[in-house]
Amino acid sequence: MTADFSAEILCVGTELLLGEILNSNAQYLAQQLAHLGIPHYYQTVVGDNPARIKKAIAIACERSRLLIFTGGLGPTPDDLTTEAIADFFDTPLVEHPEIIEDITQKFARRGRTMSQNNRKQALLPAGAAVLPNPTGTAPGMIWEPRPGLWILTFPGVPSEMQTMWQEVAVPYLKAQGLTGPIIYSKTLRFWGIPEAALAEKVAPFFELQNPTVAPYAGKGEVRLRVSARADSEAAAQALIDPVAEQLRAIAGQDYYGSDDDTLASVVGDLLHQAGQTLSVAESCTGGGLGQFLTTVPGSSDYFWGGIIAYDNRVKVELLGVDPAVLEQVGAVSAAVANQMAMGVRSRLKTTWSLSITGIAGPGGGTETKPVGLVYIGIAGPGDDVESHRMLFGNNRSREWVRWLSTCTALDLLRRKLMTL
Amino acid sequence: MTADFSAEILCVGTELLLGEILNSNAQYLAQQLAHLGIPHYYQTVVGDNPARIKKAIAIACERSRLLIFTGGLGPTPDDLTTEAIADFFDTPLVEHPEIIEDITQKFARRGRTMSQNNRKQALLPAGAAVLPNPTGTAPGMIWEPRPGLWILTFPGVPSEMQTMWQEVAVPYLKAQGLTGPIIYSKTLRFWGIPEAALAEKVAPFFELQNPTVAPYAGKGEVRLRVSARADSEAAAQALIDPVAEQLRAIAGQDYYGSDDDTLASVVGDLLHQAGQTLSVAESCTGGGLGQFLTTVPGSSDYFWGGIIAYDNRVKVELLGVDPAVLEQVGAVSAAVANQMAMGVRSRLKTTWSLSITGIAGPGGGTETKPVGLVYIGIAGPGDDVESHRMLFGNNRSREWVRWLSTCTALDLLRRKLMTL
Repeated sequence: MTADFSAEILCVGTELLLGEILNSNAQYLAQQLAHLGIPHYYQTVVGDNPARIKKAIAIACERSRLLIFTGGLGPTPDDLTTEAIADFFDTPLVEHPEIIEDITQKFARRGRTMSQNNRKQALLPAGAAVLPNPTGTAPGMIWEPRPGLWILTFPGVPSEMQTMWQEVAVPYLKAQGLTGPIIYSKTLRFWGIPEAALAEKVAPFFELQNPTVAPYAGKGEVRLRVSARADSEAAAQALIDPVAEQLRAIAGQDYYGSDDDTLASVVGDLLHQAGQTLSVAESCTGGGLGQFLTTVPGSSDYFWGGIIAYDNRVKVELLGVDPAVLEQVGAVSAAVANQMAMGVRSRLKTTWSLSITGIAGPGGGTETKPVGLVYIGIAGPGDDVESHRMLFGNNRSREWVRWLSTCTALDLLRRKLMTL
Repeated sequence: MTADFSAEILCVGTELLLGEILNSNAQYLAQQLAHLGIPHYYQTVVGDNPARIKKAIAIACERSRLLIFTGGLGPTPDDLTTEAIADFFDTPLVEHPEIIEDITQKFARRGRTMSQNNRKQALLPAGAAVLPNPTGTAPGMIWEPRPGLWILTFPGVPSEMQTMWQEVAVPYLKAQGLTGPIIYSKTLRFWGIPEAALAEKVAPFFELQNPTVAPYAGKGEVRLRVSARADSEAAAQALIDPVAEQLRAIAGQDYYGSDDDTLASVVGDLLHQAGQTLSVAESCTGGGLGQFLTTVPGSSDYFWGGIIAYDNRVKVELLGVDPAVLEQVGAVSAAVANQMAMGVRSRLKTTWSLSITGIAGPGGGTETKPVGLVYIGIAGPGDDVESHRMLFGNNRSREWVRWLSTCTALDLLRRKLMTL
């Protein structure tokens, strides 16, 4: 990599200029470039307009040497990125029969026939290589239109773009010697402690230079990112590991996992190690706890299933909740959470069970039972059962209350499993 | 507003180039500009670097006449937006005592004293007006550095920026006559038809000028955006409605809803109107179908609950699936999908039920039952039951297969409910 080498991200799409979607592709690519040690000083967003796309290319070529495009590769007439790039470099488009073959097969696998519109996706500037799209129909390109200038194009669909980036672009950039000193990061994840409280506990670490430690909050949890610059991943790891170890020791049980760990995967690992099983009884989360648990491949080892008891009749008939108790204290109560947990555990014959009953809102709250009030039950070996009362705040959205309920249930079980 | 008038959003912040945060400010401002009828063709992201900020200003001045900056107004040495703007226009910075007074008071109210660092926030280019920040310490500016060029600056904190935008910037832009005809959009949503096939059916509409019609794909569905420019929302609606009506007629049942509708909300509306109820039996989705159904407030009217039968024992014991059938044809089969649907419907006593059993991957696929094979069962009035075999492609992620399964199940029920 030469001294003046830097990348620019160019996101093409009128939907971005209308604010219809968040530019999550720019964030993903920016993180990736940082990780690969590729400097990156500018991002440009432009609409589906060939003249303006070409103006943006002209500016980008002057200041950057790796141009990464997302968007505008689809089959419809307003997908113009490839055409604009070819036109800017005065290069004809040529049809790639292997792309047509690939698209045809992908349609056939779903019992469909390729539309004529898709043919344009097989056109790339002469000299450009296909950047295959394993999960979608729109391929991208890898092109060096002139020495020392690289162009990569990706579709706008984030999942397709990310797969193509990881599987093709990263190896290509490494092979071309375009990557720099590695910035490697480890993310430590915490549940059950506010960001400010954790930041206070670990404040001296924020002064470190290499690795650096930075806190950030996300989706109900707190994270600390430990980042090191080094010539190899192993060298970066050697800088990061002792610091991460110290941070984990300070945080104690509030630390739940690193990097791609989730509360679902961590609880799953603990259950798997113990050879134990879990079932769930869900009211206000409506299946979200089971859904989250089963995001983990192989979760059938320890998660057997559960009962979605959204209506009180289901709580009574399938979970054995006492109708008199429902009548007296209501569905959102410690007693009902306990009975739900015991009911599902005995019916599914699992080691553990979790239950959730609460008021997710926006309606349904009262003075004594406001929106955000949630009871979580845990039943386990020896028919032990306990419930926890949570108040997630009545200014939170329905989905936020449901998400915090799901994660808190898993966190309570995690802490229990760790003390076994 | 003159013909060549357009805005550009310039977001300043190294954290954006490192991918540490999502650029939600760009989306917010883009939506606001569209709503105010201010054309907007480019967005630029640049780091906290004065030379590069000035280069970005030079480019933006050439192509846009309203430059909207976010970020870089804070008290720390890497907050450089104001200085770079003043420097680019060769204008000295002058101190505004009223800003110092305002910041001092804000600190005092929280029992703190203003830091010396904050003094730099009181500096604005000579001739610029203060754009007050009611909820934070960093004020912005409103400046016309030369005739026909406007600059607005905002801090990067989204809540502060949005308050300043609404309370000061919008009235200012209107008073200056810089706002234009309203752009109003309606999004039509389709399920069960590929983007290219829908595009072919409605191709002539892409030629329209006002309203415009543009397709885009998202999360397994296809959308058409119908956008009109007009002097009022009512006038825009009058342009959009007949076109939307024609598009709906052409798409037939593949159209499922508009704007904020989801398959869950649309199915919910149909059930609610019919006074009917629904239960679910989920295997590979693990609760995701129930979770999606209950994203809709008020879904307890028609959704009673279900059984998450992730393990085969639960299929047998709680849903009454015949163990011999499980043994013979396996859990991922039409027969088991049918029995799951019938089992949950009879146990929960609902009008309808949906079942999902499939192979979400990444493991567990075989030659005859590959990853992505999913059976969806529907049981309904008269004990009718039917199942549908889906093949979602073996190159999709686990979450993608689960999401398509969930949506397809709802879509099948939707089509059934529409023919009643």
